[in-house]
Amino acid sequence: MKNFVYDIPTKVYFGENQLTGNLSNELKKYGSKVLLVYGGGSIKKIGLYEKIIAELKNSDLKLFELSGIEPNPRHTSVNEGAKICKAEDIDVILAVGGGSVIDASKFIAAGKYYDGDTWDFFTGKADIKAALPIVNILTLAATGSEMDAGGVITNLDTKEKLGRIDSHLQPKVAFLDPTNTYTVSRYQTACGSADILSHIIETYFAREPGLFMLDTVMEGLMKTVIKYTPIALSQSNNYEARANLMWTSSWAINGFVRADKPHAWSCHPLEHELSAFYDITHGLGLAILTPRWMKYVLNEKTVDKFYQFGVNVFDIDKRESKTNVANQAIKLLEEFLYNDLGLTDNLTKLNISDEYFDTMAERIGTLNRFVDLNKNDIINIYKMCL
Amino acid sequence: MKNFVYDIPTKVYFGENQLTGNLSNELKKYGSKVLLVYGGGSIKKIGLYEKIIAELKNSDLKLFELSGIEPNPRHTSVNEGAKICKAEDIDVILAVGGGSVIDASKFIAAGKYYDGDTWDFFTGKADIKAALPIVNILTLAATGSEMDAGGVITNLDTKEKLGRIDSHLQPKVAFLDPTNTYTVSRYQTACGSADILSHIIETYFAREPGLFMLDTVMEGLMKTVIKYTPIALSQSNNYEARANLMWTSSWAINGFVRADKPHAWSCHPLEHELSAFYDITHGLGLAILTPRWMKYVLNEKTVDKFYQFGVNVFDIDKRESKTNVANQAIKLLEEFLYNDLGLTDNLTKLNISDEYFDTMAERIGTLNRFVDLNKNDIINIYKMCL
Repeated sequence: MKNFVYDIPTKVYFGENQLTGNLSNELKKYGSKVLLVYGGGSIKKIGLYEKIIAELKNSDLKLFELSGIEPNPRHTSVNEGAKICKAEDIDVILAVGGGSVIDASKFIAAGKYYDGDTWDFFTGKADIKAALPIVNILTLAATGSEMDAGGVITNLDTKEKLGRIDSHLQPKVAFLDPTNTYTVSRYQTACGSADILSHIIETYFAREPGLFMLDTVMEGLMKTVIKYTPIALSQSNNYEARANLMWTSSWAINGFVRADKPHAWSCHPLEHELSAFYDITHGLGLAILTPRWMKYVLNEKTVDKFYQFGVNVFDIDKRESKTNVANQAIKLLEEFLYNDLGLTDNLTKLNISDEYFDTMAERIGTLNRFVDLNKNDIINIYKMCL
Repeated sequence: MKNFVYDIPTKVYFGENQLTGNLSNELKKYGSKVLLVYGGGSIKKIGLYEKIIAELKNSDLKLFELSGIEPNPRHTSVNEGAKICKAEDIDVILAVGGGSVIDASKFIAAGKYYDGDTWDFFTGKADIKAALPIVNILTLAATGSEMDAGGVITNLDTKEKLGRIDSHLQPKVAFLDPTNTYTVSRYQTACGSADILSHIIETYFAREPGLFMLDTVMEGLMKTVIKYTPIALSQSNNYEARANLMWTSSWAINGFVRADKPHAWSCHPLEHELSAFYDITHGLGLAILTPRWMKYVLNEKTVDKFYQFGVNVFDIDKRESKTNVANQAIKLLEEFLYNDLGLTDNLTKLNISDEYFDTMAERIGTLNRFVDLNKNDIINIYKMCL
């Protein structure tokens, strides 16, 4: 069992109508100049933008704006944000949106203190030595960026999608209002849940057995996603479903369940290459990859973990053979992702061929995770996705 | 579903040998004068005291000491600590021990900034406006005080045991090394686990249904306590068992699972009166009270929650009738507490009679919790414990 450090100081306001008073009070702790970062404008459609402006108008805060952050946020947008932060001497960033906006905001926050291309944070050329404080208002339950210290940025020039984790990037405050996700489309809700589920699976299937207690927590989180996503899909305004998915998204990846498992996270590197090359939705890529990866790594040595997964998450009869339970669990996961969530079940349907599989696998290199994967293994898994 | 604020900023170093370097670095963030607070000296027997002194010697920290904190810590000890903090202008408190030491340290920390009897914090006479930062090293998995903002202090003069929660009291850093609990006696290990389990049960059985996701987490935490306590009792040095119990103790009560359930915590007020009058071990009092309280409040309206508890925690066949499952669950809980943990199963065996039941119930008043309890209900539950 490995040692670990738990350090997740983000404060969370959970529930409806928590913005009034609290938002400006929290922002004021960090200064007066606020850069509001958001995406394509959906926050205006749902009336959230207006609420924020009204709330900030009643305070002494000075507001600057950067909109148009892309779904797979680009380093060019991050550079643009960093430029505003320097020019206007911004004190605090208010990120309003899903994981893309919050991810971009993290590196904009760090960019204020770096004189160069923010892409350098991802290539190993630059350290993150400081970052502006970040307050966020979440509008999509998916990436967990609202409560963790990492983010992923895409460079379309080099076709790279790279992640970076740094404690300076940990948001100070997050506002999690489930009603802000009522208008999230069926497709985005499904992709978001696929992403949440993947984060838990990635940690659950680690080389280290880890703390039993954390496995039980992960099993609970997975059951929550499986129970509530279909409800959110059929009743978009179901508060209970949206609330459970939202709080689960944060805890799937904020570091709590990861704790003592350094050798985890098998599918994300494969998905990042996929969406770097094809700009597909992250959760969809994960939904296609995960069951294939499971089939590829299931063997006599790994069957115990799949058995535990099948019995405790999918409630499969524990008296059945381990192999049977394992295979049934993968089948039930596929049914959940492709039937219940309605996600596309292979890459061919997305017009993706094997053209770049070799390049993608080459860039990933060897993965020492739940099961070691070399370049050939990775190509094989990609091929299973066609 | 209720709104809530999540705010648990305590940083935790979990595992073996995390003190070296980290302890002095963390303390130095807050100043140079450290008050080391501990109990009856068991930290010397296990070599922990020596390790701390060695670690601090290599730094510029100046050490002061307060030992002899009682198992049910008394307000007189808190006053003594506060006096030292003022006289020596202490910067940070290093609490080394179980919940008693950490609880006492919290009010010592607040006492530095209050000119009066620290008991005033519990009677409503004084607010907590500031407190010294607290770093703790946990030696007993039980109360969860290492990661929460509350504490309980006993006043033997007035026979009162009262709690107080205040965000100023939240520890800054906790060192959780499971090997520091290897020498905890069978009896204290059992009482500690009864306490942990009670914290989860108190929150699980709340009037509000709350988030399903948090119920699944609580079920996992309860299963962890039930699985690992017998192992820790038979193999005192079992790292896996001690680690699971330790991290579960923190998460049982740090506020995460409580979240959106204001009407919880039924048995603790009854136990606090018991141990205020008889100075019995808190976990033992809870072990005696909890199953009686369950039997008293189980009815047609409440049976669903007991059914959920029985199926998900004790793995009782879900096809049985709800009432059967509920009764079996209570029986299995009793077996766990009185057989597996070997705890005393009634108050009579502890030489406690009904002499003060009326007074105790009077002082508690009406409890609006999972099920409303008035004075007569409380007396009835006490009587069931004889």
